[in-house]
Amino acid sequence: MDLKALIRDIPDFPKPGIIFRDITTLLRDRAGFRYTVETFESKFRDANLIPDYVIGIESRGFLFGPTLAYQFNAGFVPVRKPGKLPAAVHKIEYDLEYGTDQLEIHQDALPKDSKVVIVDDLIATGGTAKATADLLDQIGCELLGFGFVIELKGLEGRKKLPDVPMITLVEY
Amino acid sequence: MDLKALIRDIPDFPKPGIIFRDITTLLRDRAGFRYTVETFESKFRDANLIPDYVIGIESRGFLFGPTLAYQFNAGFVPVRKPGKLPAAVHKIEYDLEYGTDQLEIHQDALPKDSKVVIVDDLIATGGTAKATADLLDQIGCELLGFGFVIELKGLEGRKKLPDVPMITLVEY
Repeated sequence: MDLKALIRDIPDFPKPGIIFRDITTLLRDRAGFRYTVETFESKFRDANLIPDYVIGIESRGFLFGPTLAYQFNAGFVPVRKPGKLPAAVHKIEYDLEYGTDQLEIHQDALPKDSKVVIVDDLIATGGTAKATADLLDQIGCELLGFGFVIELKGLEGRKKLPDVPMITLVEY
Repeated sequence: MDLKALIRDIPDFPKPGIIFRDITTLLRDRAGFRYTVETFESKFRDANLIPDYVIGIESRGFLFGPTLAYQFNAGFVPVRKPGKLPAAVHKIEYDLEYGTDQLEIHQDALPKDSKVVIVDDLIATGGTAKATADLLDQIGCELLGFGFVIELKGLEGRKKLPDVPMITLVEY
């Protein structure tokens, strides 16, 4: 299936000069969404990445992570923006193009030494995914790999990540 | 399965006097998450609610909606906070305890007359769910029902919603 045909290009969003890759047109397509989930799963299995927990990054990582967790009969753990998680958190600050942002995970979100994969809709510069990997390091998890529906190859986010397998479905 | 035993109570979050019902402890429990998805699905089927599209409300509705869409072989459509959706939107403003908030849906998110269910993690006063139903009305969908993991019965959110079936798994 040609997933790229289901992803809509929106020029100049969120700001001039950026082409936004809109996955809502993929999600609403029942066959496309099903193919995305099942291809993700089979690529993870082919790479021998069988997680105890799938980690999803707010908000668009929530659109794929829990379904993948369900397929693997794994637990799902959210990484969220500041102030959203109600119990004690590990927090990390990371650089954006302009300024900084923060992500949080519950300190007791999952047991030390758990095998985990990190899932998000898209990897651009890799800053968010790297920050999430660092948060899991604070807990002491074994990071098996990453999964992204879309990779923006020109931004070379892959180079910023730990040296574990990275599964992607569509490249620009 | 006792789902309530997997939901963590956090007193005084996000503000004094509120008991926050934390579903992250349910999501990370593989058996609990699986049971939640499968019970949701079977209750929807028992009520003859078979959607073309599952509608999920940002952000915690994204944690259950897509997996349920997958189970029904339906499409998934997100309702998001302002400024997140990149194409032309319908927008609705609704009242909070103090002030107002807004939600958006893509104008072309789904075809007129589609059969839909609205899914979120929790119903409290019902303001968000009612606003989402109104957005779907603007498109002209057939709203089959609502699904919430948790219902806070004392707040009587159910009374605010259109008269269609409402599936809940845990009540407080």
